[in-house]
Amino acid sequence: MLHAAELIRRKRDGERIPADELSDLILEYARGNVPDYQMAAFCMAVYFRGLDVAETFALTDAMIRSGETIDLHGAIGRKVVDKHSTGGVGDKTSLAVGPIVAACGVPFGKMSGRGLGHTGGTLDKLESIPGFRVELSTEQFLEQVRDVGLAIIGQSANLVPADKLLYGLRDVTATVDNVSLIAASIMSKKIAAGADAIVLDVKVGDGAFMKTIGNARELAELMLELGRHAGREVACVLTDMDQPLGHAVGNALEIRETIATLRGDGPPDFTELVLGACAHLLAFSDLGIDERTGRERAAAAVQNGSALAMYERWIAAQGGDPAEDALPSAAVVRDVTAPQAGFVGAIGAVEVGLAALRLGAGRRTKDDHIDHAVGVVCFKKRGDAVDAGETIAQVHARDDESAARAADDVLAAYTFADAAPVARPIVLETIG
Amino acid sequence: MLHAAELIRRKRDGERIPADELSDLILEYARGNVPDYQMAAFCMAVYFRGLDVAETFALTDAMIRSGETIDLHGAIGRKVVDKHSTGGVGDKTSLAVGPIVAACGVPFGKMSGRGLGHTGGTLDKLESIPGFRVELSTEQFLEQVRDVGLAIIGQSANLVPADKLLYGLRDVTATVDNVSLIAASIMSKKIAAGADAIVLDVKVGDGAFMKTIGNARELAELMLELGRHAGREVACVLTDMDQPLGHAVGNALEIRETIATLRGDGPPDFTELVLGACAHLLAFSDLGIDERTGRERAAAAVQNGSALAMYERWIAAQGGDPAEDALPSAAVVRDVTAPQAGFVGAIGAVEVGLAALRLGAGRRTKDDHIDHAVGVVCFKKRGDAVDAGETIAQVHARDDESAARAADDVLAAYTFADAAPVARPIVLETIG
Repeated sequence: MLHAAELIRRKRDGERIPADELSDLILEYARGNVPDYQMAAFCMAVYFRGLDVAETFALTDAMIRSGETIDLHGAIGRKVVDKHSTGGVGDKTSLAVGPIVAACGVPFGKMSGRGLGHTGGTLDKLESIPGFRVELSTEQFLEQVRDVGLAIIGQSANLVPADKLLYGLRDVTATVDNVSLIAASIMSKKIAAGADAIVLDVKVGDGAFMKTIGNARELAELMLELGRHAGREVACVLTDMDQPLGHAVGNALEIRETIATLRGDGPPDFTELVLGACAHLLAFSDLGIDERTGRERAAAAVQNGSALAMYERWIAAQGGDPAEDALPSAAVVRDVTAPQAGFVGAIGAVEVGLAALRLGAGRRTKDDHIDHAVGVVCFKKRGDAVDAGETIAQVHARDDESAARAADDVLAAYTFADAAPVARPIVLETIG
Repeated sequence: MLHAAELIRRKRDGERIPADELSDLILEYARGNVPDYQMAAFCMAVYFRGLDVAETFALTDAMIRSGETIDLHGAIGRKVVDKHSTGGVGDKTSLAVGPIVAACGVPFGKMSGRGLGHTGGTLDKLESIPGFRVELSTEQFLEQVRDVGLAIIGQSANLVPADKLLYGLRDVTATVDNVSLIAASIMSKKIAAGADAIVLDVKVGDGAFMKTIGNARELAELMLELGRHAGREVACVLTDMDQPLGHAVGNALEIRETIATLRGDGPPDFTELVLGACAHLLAFSDLGIDERTGRERAAAAVQNGSALAMYERWIAAQGGDPAEDALPSAAVVRDVTAPQAGFVGAIGAVEVGLAALRLGAGRRTKDDHIDHAVGVVCFKKRGDAVDAGETIAQVHARDDESAARAADDVLAAYTFADAAPVARPIVLETIG
């Protein structure tokens, strides 16, 4: 019989917990037989003592076994690809990657989450499209991946229920920051959701969960191991999150930017990230092409309009109106101008994310209501030259008061310099 | 407003928590506004990061403020003394100290606890006396200390409710072993219970919570600081718990040994410990005598029968029958004999405690029923010479089967040697 207190003690004292016992702990927790307070103490012990790779495998396996798993490969009869990001400010990558990859003939099936705090969530962004439904049954999801080639939906409640419980608990007990718990949380969901090949985008920097390249690398390597242990093909890209990704931050604004990118008019950093991810996914696919060819095909899909057409087909398939005009607009749009001439030295991603949050684009607590129209657009990015008085950003707000405050916040997020800072690529490193 | 998750994070990251915030956390926890899972994570963070003296003061103060406090001094109009032990095997010290001190004219008022695991509890021992009531109201308690000079009762539910909650939680989350949490738990109860002067008996060794003299010293010094911070006079004795204390382990058996000791026929180690504690308490009292005189008076109270008379008066005052004959006896008494001639090298206190527990003298979980008659008597102690076949111990059991098993357990707890081990005093050190 499981003796949870004794297991907590052993982890506290730095012992390795055997796979079967760790499994029991997680599964009994998911069944409600281990109380939250014991799991919270265990997570804090893990925070201090860590889990080794074998323990992390066992944890991930148990989390997967806590619920249903989806056999995407079996249901579609082809290799299906997926993409995941650890979350950042202005991160709408999946929304552009999905249509491009699907337009290239590779099925893309993704279950996604909602945003909390200064980072937005893919589902929230999609819900700014009138009519769009994120709640499909697993059957409908599989059908759409098969028929349309692309579906992005909310995670099924039956998928990795242990993670839902555990994440909620970690969030309020200061036990989120552990690489094994993070890796197991992400990879259990990716593996249970059934894709054969996964590209993981690990954000690095001020606005990301991983503040340093070293931490990001550690997480990436562990996720690779977990994916491969489960028989999946995985690649990790470590990408810059010291400034917002692209220009737009806020739900409908990011959908507009996605459409622009699929039309070939996207911001350079975002376009680069999207095409790189597509290249990896296409190289993993059953098309039998390498990454270089993958990138060419992805770029071609944007150029020839097939990516945008796929976007429209996908949105419509999930009940949404794909027209850009259908998206909500904010009542007040206010320019933010440069107080001096020079170069943009830095843009604090967290500050921009929080400005958008305060405008109503995100939620502070799980029950907050989201205003899909509001947000921030940072036209000028790190390294861009600016003139005094030139518009560097725009605030989309519901009223003048919140617009004025957000404009101050956004301006405060910018740092100006006399010389252009050293250029940094959007993709810092690729692993796997 | 209290942000518990943020407070957990700060302690996790090694920050010092200001007194007012720590207070809020404890008081809101006691009010049910901070959930167990957050407190469990906090306790585990404390396990790893510790609390400094100022934090431990704040914790103790908040715990005291979570419930009622008793003004023993005001109610009695005299200095009242109390004694506490961190718990060991065969530890019936308070039961002998109380009557001796009271017989010397110093009021003794103590609120006590129950046993769990291999150590017994004072209340359980007292309840082996037919008719004895441990549940008195605070009013009755004060009245009896005033009128009889002595009362030992169960801790009022209103006294330090935060400790009751916290201890229960720590017990099942592997967060008991932290010197600050232990010191705050003990001292909050002692301070709230109102005695002016307290002797703390910190058990050291195999059968005690503190395994090393270093750990015991650390706990003792912290408890001294907490007591003095609250304006109480405190002394700590560090005493040996590498073997059971005295001979008897088990509830009625320990009451019999208490009576023998009050009659002057107690085991040497136990008698020494009792007289030493009495000397400290009498020196703290308003009698205006020093420790040496205190010891003489204590010894005299035993010699002249006043201590035993006080015991009888006290037991009767709480409804019990003080006659030794009234105590329950076990159906089966089985001798344990030495398998070889030589000396007793060691007696595992935990093993003897567990043998008594298995006989039914203690409880594994809070709901276990206790058999007051059963237990173990270790006639031969460390350093005693034994002949082959000589009776070294006795098992008191409810049936032959449990007697046979306990006899094996007790024999296994003994180690024999060809030469007497180096003698060790019962009182290892006095602090304060």
